[in-house]
Amino acid sequence: MAKAAELSSWNDGAAKSAIVDFVARVTDQDGADYVAPSERIATFDNDGTLWCEQPIQVQFLFLVERVKGLAAQDSSLASRQPFKALLERDLKTLQTLGMKGLQELFAETHSGMTLDEFEHLVNAWFGSAQHPKLKRGFTRVVFRPQIELLEYLRAHGFKTFIVSGGGIDFMRVISEELYGIEREHVVGSSAKLQFDAERGALTKLRDLQSFDDRETKVLNIGLHIGRRPILAFGNSDGDLAMLRYTRAGKGARLALLLHHDDAEREVAYDRDFKLSPLNEALDKAKGYGITVVSMKRDWGAVFD
Amino acid sequence: MAKAAELSSWNDGAAKSAIVDFVARVTDQDGADYVAPSERIATFDNDGTLWCEQPIQVQFLFLVERVKGLAAQDSSLASRQPFKALLERDLKTLQTLGMKGLQELFAETHSGMTLDEFEHLVNAWFGSAQHPKLKRGFTRVVFRPQIELLEYLRAHGFKTFIVSGGGIDFMRVISEELYGIEREHVVGSSAKLQFDAERGALTKLRDLQSFDDRETKVLNIGLHIGRRPILAFGNSDGDLAMLRYTRAGKGARLALLLHHDDAEREVAYDRDFKLSPLNEALDKAKGYGITVVSMKRDWGAVFD
Repeated sequence: MAKAAELSSWNDGAAKSAIVDFVARVTDQDGADYVAPSERIATFDNDGTLWCEQPIQVQFLFLVERVKGLAAQDSSLASRQPFKALLERDLKTLQTLGMKGLQELFAETHSGMTLDEFEHLVNAWFGSAQHPKLKRGFTRVVFRPQIELLEYLRAHGFKTFIVSGGGIDFMRVISEELYGIEREHVVGSSAKLQFDAERGALTKLRDLQSFDDRETKVLNIGLHIGRRPILAFGNSDGDLAMLRYTRAGKGARLALLLHHDDAEREVAYDRDFKLSPLNEALDKAKGYGITVVSMKRDWGAVFD
Repeated sequence: MAKAAELSSWNDGAAKSAIVDFVARVTDQDGADYVAPSERIATFDNDGTLWCEQPIQVQFLFLVERVKGLAAQDSSLASRQPFKALLERDLKTLQTLGMKGLQELFAETHSGMTLDEFEHLVNAWFGSAQHPKLKRGFTRVVFRPQIELLEYLRAHGFKTFIVSGGGIDFMRVISEELYGIEREHVVGSSAKLQFDAERGALTKLRDLQSFDDRETKVLNIGLHIGRRPILAFGNSDGDLAMLRYTRAGKGARLALLLHHDDAEREVAYDRDFKLSPLNEALDKAKGYGITVVSMKRDWGAVFD
């Protein structure tokens, strides 16, 4: 039997039982559902699953700081869209930008530098930035029950991965410190890279290589991991393909969906969150065999 | 001091000393060159570095079997190029096909099936196929000194990766058994994938996603690993960018280049091997700080 003592921030109930029972089954060498450690792949979305994505995604706040920094160097930026709207907090215009405008913002602010230079920028930002609502550093907006779950899974021989729409280079800067997840176990959205042999450096280009959302999460699992997860955890429709892919494998599988229904301790949202809605996945969870985790009901604590 | 006893198939000499000294330095917690375990990334080319690539690359022999199998199902294949040349062992025509013809052969024979189906095909082939010269299964054409080196590095906290022009899905089928390298630590050439949500399966498409050679090896290290290796091992000009990228990092770095100069125990070849020549890397090894490993001089044994 797997021990559940480590999951101390999880309330007793169906979700916790599903996790503990699943881990017990796949680690029982004499059981029909035994899975060898090399195949114990667990994939987690990041924004809204491992850390708080409200009122706005963490990387978007980094992006705002980058635009401010770039505008200080190049005053013409402040008069060009979509930068103008961002700097003037013109939410109405920002909402009309759509995916294309958002990608333009990321392309401009996340390119034209080496990977090392980008890492320095991200590190410096994490060192001083504060979450606007929680009033704490962004390294402390992770969900405590999820940290316990990651450690619990690894203690039972699982390999834990992030598979997220967030920037792969952005998340890798903090994934080991925050989650104990190695850089090479981080899968995310990526820009094309260029190798400068003389400088021996990799440079981030403007062109998007992969927007790691929806079906693309599954494609990138195929590319980066090469094995179907036996456990996956998400919180939005963007995770549904990954959850279905996980469930479709033979043998014991566990797909988990976090429902942000706790207005008191975090934020209650699902269908109305435009950037990353939870609609289809919530409607079809039961039919697809997905276990819904209620933040309000299933988590005894949310943050540290 | 790191122990060298495990490298029993390596002869004493400059190459072995370079390895043992390097590992001792980066693992000495009190030394100036200490590297934390999470950053001890070692990348290895596969064909010609970890296993024998002569007289022909292993995956190419699998490809020939696939063409024969497909021709048995579809007789029109035997009259179409480049399949005709392959089936008729028409070397003259095959040599004129170039990269485009070769990619056509791979696209036709490695697509149109799920990842699971492809794995079954590869596994079945490895179960019966024999190396034409060594007269043994392909799981036994690995270089014994390299297996020792991989184990030696892992025993000293390194994470070992394959970064090869070989097919990522092909190598993953045997990487754990042959090399103790996890599937998620295999980087290689890849086809685009498609997710079929209803079947819950990933399908291999004809389109190339990445040909993992030369500079692309470095780009894929950036994508898959997100960290510059501190040790890299290759055997051809296709590995030079990876070796230079590795050497260009700060602190202790080791770049190794295997020279196939042992006609008696394996094959002596370098500049004349069209598929994967060793020219520029050999000429510039000294200037770039690359340690050349002579199979004849530095390896006490080649195969098991």
